[in-house]
Amino acid sequence: MSKLLTTLRLVPRTLRNHRATTSAADSRNIFHKYRKIMDVPGGVFKGLSDRFNGVTIVSNEESAGDFGKRLTSSLDYWIENKRRAIWFKVHLDQSDWIPILTKNGFVFHHAKNDFVTLLRWLPTHEKVNIPVYSHTMIGVGGAVLSDNNEVLVVSERYSLIPNSWKLPGGYVEPKENLIDAVIREVREETGVEAEFETVISLRHSHGGSYDCSDMYVVIGLRPKTLELKRCEREISKLAWMPVEEYLNHENVHETNRHFIKKFLDYRKLGIKIDCEEKRHQTLQKLYNLYSAKSLKDDSC
Amino acid sequence: MSKLLTTLRLVPRTLRNHRATTSAADSRNIFHKYRKIMDVPGGVFKGLSDRFNGVTIVSNEESAGDFGKRLTSSLDYWIENKRRAIWFKVHLDQSDWIPILTKNGFVFHHAKNDFVTLLRWLPTHEKVNIPVYSHTMIGVGGAVLSDNNEVLVVSERYSLIPNSWKLPGGYVEPKENLIDAVIREVREETGVEAEFETVISLRHSHGGSYDCSDMYVVIGLRPKTLELKRCEREISKLAWMPVEEYLNHENVHETNRHFIKKFLDYRKLGIKIDCEEKRHQTLQKLYNLYSAKSLKDDSC
Repeated sequence: MSKLLTTLRLVPRTLRNHRATTSAADSRNIFHKYRKIMDVPGGVFKGLSDRFNGVTIVSNEESAGDFGKRLTSSLDYWIENKRRAIWFKVHLDQSDWIPILTKNGFVFHHAKNDFVTLLRWLPTHEKVNIPVYSHTMIGVGGAVLSDNNEVLVVSERYSLIPNSWKLPGGYVEPKENLIDAVIREVREETGVEAEFETVISLRHSHGGSYDCSDMYVVIGLRPKTLELKRCEREISKLAWMPVEEYLNHENVHETNRHFIKKFLDYRKLGIKIDCEEKRHQTLQKLYNLYSAKSLKDDSC
Repeated sequence: MSKLLTTLRLVPRTLRNHRATTSAADSRNIFHKYRKIMDVPGGVFKGLSDRFNGVTIVSNEESAGDFGKRLTSSLDYWIENKRRAIWFKVHLDQSDWIPILTKNGFVFHHAKNDFVTLLRWLPTHEKVNIPVYSHTMIGVGGAVLSDNNEVLVVSERYSLIPNSWKLPGGYVEPKENLIDAVIREVREETGVEAEFETVISLRHSHGGSYDCSDMYVVIGLRPKTLELKRCEREISKLAWMPVEEYLNHENVHETNRHFIKKFLDYRKLGIKIDCEEKRHQTLQKLYNLYSAKSLKDDSC
């Protein structure tokens, strides 16, 4: 990297400062510590530098002119300056850049609604060292068990296995916590308000939607209300079913049976998988930490 | 959907049959039950139908001719036939389709190496009902505790917090199980062979790499070998550190301390989060199920 030609400005570290002082960088990850590249020769894209000596070009923050010509000059400049990964974040309005990028050796990395990110790895004597994008869909299921020992069950409108009695649940939204997600899904599908008791199980499998892997976190909940209000778009029927009936019902899949059995086991054994909300002291980042614990005195 | 015009062929249900009888469909998800659309008017893309009445066009399986013209005719046909989501999976070689698709109301959905998938939702009186693509990066960390009460610790070459002593680990590869991933990462980074004892904790946070959320699963392992062999590319130093030293070391982050404390707690309390490998009876799909259990007699 030519230090003479690039003036680097560090993006501040904490999210608070970041939000206060930058705007365009909001869609990028501050923990990559992007730095704006201020001074480049004419005809070359400016872009942002990262701590791995890569460059990111955001299509709607640069003037393209003759895109093909500018790309060629930029690639020459980046190769000369020993840059590693070159990233182009291309928004819908600049999508005519894409065929030119792919003809210049770029491949796709990830995409989301209004942009696609393409990548070219420049080093010729170094193995590509770029993590693949996220490939796991996260879902949650709610095992809602009432004081009357009844389980809240639903039958989905578009189920792969028709008439199956399942637990309410669905995909976790971007930036949503697992417990918030399961409480929301239970409310949306059944009208029942519920609160967290314990994580029960995590199921991990491959070859799900969009060829992604699937992680399904089942969470034990206590209902705060009992009245049912069906989501007509997604749910064909719903009920409070006595737990004994659920555990022997022919239209309940063995895995769902397993979750309820486990929930009952945890209560009997006095164990739970609890959630703590914490903040990372150095990075000032909030996180949730799920771990098992015993509710009994361990001296017994 | 016009049943007169479309002859549907069901993709067989089990993965085994699927592998034996289809090839082009391998990159798509069998659980979406894609069906090849056999009979369409001239000048219209054929594509695959899904159970939500959507159509998927795979760019390198169709003849384009004049792409813009064919797209216009196809959209007219799909709207007339009340299709819902229209998906275009565009490979690198056909990337000149992309600017034409975005000008026709398509947006990006996801991308991976050699293709990008674009989407247009046709219904005008129905809310878009398409799950967003995966937005969570899955990582694993290994808490390897020897019989001498020493923890296997590493210092990363490109760490955000320099000199910090961390647990070996990294991202889970596509279609990799969590325990396989952590054993692989420990082996690659440190040369140590280890085996599963328990899941310890799951940490969930937002705003990580590529603006994804981050799920970090920490797994307790028993070493089968003790000799250290450092991965020079990623790791700057590594050691077996006495557990008491680790729990009081100033360059160990509180969360990593928490994981080791929890591991010791689980052993003391006789609880673990175990993994069972199962097969879904209807869908014939393998999955891993992680749940807590007590190793003690619960009658105490």
